[in-house]
Amino acid sequence: MPIQELPRDEDLSLLVDLYELTMLQAYWAEGMHDTATFSLFFRKLPPHRNYMLACGQQHVARLISQLRFGDSQIEALRRLDLFQSAFLDWLADFRFTGTLHALPEGTPVFPHEPLLEVEAPIGEAQFLESLIMNYVHLETVLASKASRIVNAAQGRPVVDFGMRRMHGIDAAVRGVRAYRMAGISATSNVLGASRHDLPARGTMAHSFIQAHDSEDVALQAFAREFPGTALLVDTYDTVDAVKRLIGWLDANPDLHISAIRLDSGDLGELAKTCRHLLDHGGYPEIKITASGGLNEYRIQDLLADDAPIDSFGVGTALGAASDAPCLELAYKLTEYAGEPRLKHSPGKHSLPGRKQVYRESDAEGFYRRDTLTLRDETAPGMPLLQPIIIDGEFQAERMADPDTAREASLDAVARLPEGLHRLDQGAAYRVDISERIHDYRRQAEARLGLPSDG
Amino acid sequence: MPIQELPRDEDLSLLVDLYELTMLQAYWAEGMHDTATFSLFFRKLPPHRNYMLACGQQHVARLISQLRFGDSQIEALRRLDLFQSAFLDWLADFRFTGTLHALPEGTPVFPHEPLLEVEAPIGEAQFLESLIMNYVHLETVLASKASRIVNAAQGRPVVDFGMRRMHGIDAAVRGVRAYRMAGISATSNVLGASRHDLPARGTMAHSFIQAHDSEDVALQAFAREFPGTALLVDTYDTVDAVKRLIGWLDANPDLHISAIRLDSGDLGELAKTCRHLLDHGGYPEIKITASGGLNEYRIQDLLADDAPIDSFGVGTALGAASDAPCLELAYKLTEYAGEPRLKHSPGKHSLPGRKQVYRESDAEGFYRRDTLTLRDETAPGMPLLQPIIIDGEFQAERMADPDTAREASLDAVARLPEGLHRLDQGAAYRVDISERIHDYRRQAEARLGLPSDG
Repeated sequence: MPIQELPRDEDLSLLVDLYELTMLQAYWAEGMHDTATFSLFFRKLPPHRNYMLACGQQHVARLISQLRFGDSQIEALRRLDLFQSAFLDWLADFRFTGTLHALPEGTPVFPHEPLLEVEAPIGEAQFLESLIMNYVHLETVLASKASRIVNAAQGRPVVDFGMRRMHGIDAAVRGVRAYRMAGISATSNVLGASRHDLPARGTMAHSFIQAHDSEDVALQAFAREFPGTALLVDTYDTVDAVKRLIGWLDANPDLHISAIRLDSGDLGELAKTCRHLLDHGGYPEIKITASGGLNEYRIQDLLADDAPIDSFGVGTALGAASDAPCLELAYKLTEYAGEPRLKHSPGKHSLPGRKQVYRESDAEGFYRRDTLTLRDETAPGMPLLQPIIIDGEFQAERMADPDTAREASLDAVARLPEGLHRLDQGAAYRVDISERIHDYRRQAEARLGLPSDG
Repeated sequence: MPIQELPRDEDLSLLVDLYELTMLQAYWAEGMHDTATFSLFFRKLPPHRNYMLACGQQHVARLISQLRFGDSQIEALRRLDLFQSAFLDWLADFRFTGTLHALPEGTPVFPHEPLLEVEAPIGEAQFLESLIMNYVHLETVLASKASRIVNAAQGRPVVDFGMRRMHGIDAAVRGVRAYRMAGISATSNVLGASRHDLPARGTMAHSFIQAHDSEDVALQAFAREFPGTALLVDTYDTVDAVKRLIGWLDANPDLHISAIRLDSGDLGELAKTCRHLLDHGGYPEIKITASGGLNEYRIQDLLADDAPIDSFGVGTALGAASDAPCLELAYKLTEYAGEPRLKHSPGKHSLPGRKQVYRESDAEGFYRRDTLTLRDETAPGMPLLQPIIIDGEFQAERMADPDTAREASLDAVARLPEGLHRLDQGAAYRVDISERIHDYRRQAEARLGLPSDG
């Protein structure tokens, strides 16, 4: 009997909002099987964000190409007492047969740009909505938050301490994939580290100190067990602990440590005092790592104040992207049976058609403008959307290995216009929409008898 | 080959922050195996919260009692090149042998009250920290948000539409457990519904309308396929769609629908207009359901304005508890080897000892006060913490079935003092701390030579 309740592979076909399946039966009953295009995008950036780092859109493609309904999933649907038997028989043979274009993992992305587009018989494309959104949302939200924190740390290593605040086990493990993409250096999360090939880091909690009769005994025992470790020095009185530490390091030349960790109090002031004590005590090589309620703003302030901190551990703020835990991703029908489609609800307009995104650089290599076009148009710059599933076949060789993807992603973030690296909302990045998209939209509005927006 | 990367049962022993394992080896090397008590609590409520609904603390206990390190987990740890071989051999025999007390699922909980306490040999108890926190954090954060939304809806059904914004697959599925506990009526999430026995609900997306050549054709096809369904009426022009709907319902007496869904625009005004049209058109039995960017505040405002809305679908705000996605849960050592333990870092004080929480009601049955005591004390009211693992054995029969737990939870929320149901921070609930806990704290401070806080 399983000790947990995580979905098994075959359950993933049920990780769907019910309306995808009712719509699918309706399409099936009406014999509507023409090709549809659905586009995954967002209309506006979350608060404080100047860009998002698109992540998960190739990752989910691998999964889509292998989605199946097993007997027990069909039985679960039968029990809902909502579906025709003949439809459920048809569903048992479900395979994704369509094509999926996606941005490379780790691409900076802006409002209205597709992270991915699906072209498939309408039922198949519709069915994927919930799974695609859940999958891409998590990795994109976490990678985007991580990118801000990495920017704020100005090259100093940032270690993920967030597992305990992450929303469940899938987030805890898959989040490490997103963090790695965004340039996080290491993680405390052992399973995430092992799955996504990031170094695992960690030393001790306050409880280790508290369990011993004295702080010095605890720290020395740990340094003996793990030569070259970092030691946590703030359980009772940080400055006093560091003074005593210098004393017992002097007295025990067999003991070596690489760093001290500060986890509470005024981290900037404590770092300066401790740096001074260590330097003048003869231990300039011992580094200082800081943690405890850190986020990108506090890191920026600490460094602006010249706090001598060598690396940062970030937990809560990173783990649930706490200032912007959601991105309003939309997965919208943009074309069906060769005709443009759009939604016209207030505040929720969409752009019709299959699309491409071209990204243009200036002479110095900085990105200066994107152009959103129909798929078969050309525009200045490089086209970003690439096919990752073709006629139902996942194109594994088109997906960069994680190291290459990370390098490309860090390079792309570095090429963003300078103002976009600021932690608060800067100037918006320029995204032009091609005239042919506007024409196509007017064509759709005319067909529906809707007033045109211009 | 698995199509996804969700942890398998045996991987859960690696869902741990690395420092738990380094501390465990240090305890093992020092021969420190005395009994420790760790307490899971939070120091302050997140913004806007007057109570949290403790959830997941019994759920995780079932898992703890079955945690094991398999060969491949031991191998993964060996590859870290950090642990002694003899320690890894010892780890291969790991079993949790301790005792775990927990609040019943769905209990309202306040700052400093333990959601659970673990008593076990120190290494075992320490090792569980990350897993317990990840597990309880998710369900508590989501149940607490859901409870606010259910309160705001004043008895009208609330349906979970949040799967696409939830952080990953585990959150999407296990979240439904938390929602159910808090009184959410149904969910769009098919797998979550089937795992946690909540009705699955859903009809159609805008894409279904857009894919058809006319809105009326789409709605009629759907009503034919699913008699008694709800229909989405806001794709182009809501009022116009409802007028035409009344017309074609009149003309097609074989078609029946139960509700219309509004998903954009001024929901309150549209609901009033549509209610009027339906009532005067001869369809007073057709209900109105609303969705689209709803949260507890918007629901409260809509009902305060007498919007004739019969049920609510809530997505983003619920799915990631977007206004307060994190709770600063702490898992702290409070006793070791029969001695009180505490942490003295600025702003992070903890209370020593094994504890109990007594909850006292007034003559009308409303809760009036909790008293936090040492475990062997008594105080007025009912003791809340109950053993759910005893000497390593999970006490399945002590865990209420989900229906009973939900009923008890809803009853408990109803008994909270009135001000605590407000959406904004109200008066704090009274939690007294027993004199013996204060004595025990002074005893710990004296032993450590620390200044007492009084």
